[in-house]
Amino acid sequence: MSDILNRLAETLEQRKSADPTSSYVAKLYAKGLDSILKKIGEEATETVIAAKGGDKGQLVYEMADLWFHSLVLLADQGLHPDDVLNELARREGLSGIAEKAARGDK
Amino acid sequence: MSDILNRLAETLEQRKSADPTSSYVAKLYAKGLDSILKKIGEEATETVIAAKGGDKGQLVYEMADLWFHSLVLLADQGLHPDDVLNELARREGLSGIAEKAARGDK
Amino acid sequence: MSDILNRLAETLEQRKSADPTSSYVAKLYAKGLDSILKKIGEEATETVIAAKGGDKGQLVYEMADLWFHSLVLLADQGLHPDDVLNELARREGLSGIAEKAARGDK
Amino acid sequence: MSDILNRLAETLEQRKSADPTSSYVAKLYAKGLDSILKKIGEEATETVIAAKGGDKGQLVYEMADLWFHSLVLLADQGLHPDDVLNELARREGLSGIAEKAARGDK
Repeated sequence: MSDILNRLAETLEQRKSADPTSSYVAKLYAKGLDSILKKIGEEATETVIAAKGGDKGQLVYEMADLWFHSLVLLADQGLHPDDVLNELARREGLSGIAEKAARGDK
Repeated sequence: MSDILNRLAETLEQRKSADPTSSYVAKLYAKGLDSILKKIGEEATETVIAAKGGDKGQLVYEMADLWFHSLVLLADQGLHPDDVLNELARREGLSGIAEKAARGDK
Repeated sequence: MSDILNRLAETLEQRKSADPTSSYVAKLYAKGLDSILKKIGEEATETVIAAKGGDKGQLVYEMADLWFHSLVLLADQGLHPDDVLNELARREGLSGIAEKAARGDK
Repeated sequence: MSDILNRLAETLEQRKSADPTSSYVAKLYAKGLDSILKKIGEEATETVIAAKGGDKGQLVYEMADLWFHSLVLLADQGLHPDDVLNELARREGLSGIAEKAARGDK
């Protein structure tokens, strides 16, 4: 599953130069940052509602919406999911683990 | 960067059986679902504020918080980041692409 | 301005028995609690975005949306704005002040 | 109950010149707009969680928190609850009704 965020990031990057009428995402970019941020707020709320509702399929669906719009926000701001993943790795000390692996350490 | 979500998911799974006083995450699990959901709402809001503030480092930092607590929520609910990534792949038709790659298709 | 919340609460109460196609609010009740809660999340996010944007007219507009949907939520749950105002008064010790005034105390 | 928002607005206005260590609200002003906005996001999420939880007392409590921090935001931005109530009245045509009542019209 590892490449999905990268593939999505690539697709979202390409949509930045697309005709605003050509897709949902192209339209969202054209509406601008505030519209993208409204979606972050909406999808976070829907994730909370789904979790409280107890339907795990619905929770996965809403969290996919939240992550998708997170990726749109990153692309809009000239950022990449790796920026976020690197920050997560840095916090968890996983970059250290990865470095050791790369150096052949045990 | 591909393995970070998986590594984090593993770590978060292990913390579920840890002493609630032993770590931030163990404490958050012990407080229960509502406390985790509050963090989703908080971090989504902080992501919006950071994006409006225009500091990209801050945006990455807050989105890392949002994704981290998303992973805590998934673990708490017996779900895995792959559940969300698979849903994203399904929507984008990327699972089809991945299948072709696995079969050696061009 | 004191009666506006009460008047709105009355109007919103009446809409609960209205044809779901007859108004925005009647439709929202018919869609159910989750749809009302999504609006709370949306309007809170739009309030945050407006405040960060620095346009005070826009902030007032979005906060009116947030309070309006708060009133819809209260009505849907059989509650009244006075329930919230009483709670605020209780916290601030204003109910004590109000009582004294009613008794003619200085 | 009609004066509670006004009384709270007065109190919150006074706190703007208070020592930041003297009260919760004075401290919140000192932390600045972003900290107030985080509270809006937090309390909106807690309102959603409480409503889904089905405990009406908890819902009233969280909505009081949301309204309270709305009033703090208004004060911080040099606005007054009447600005929001006037906007609500304008939308609902209640100002028209109020005017007619004031003029003794039927």
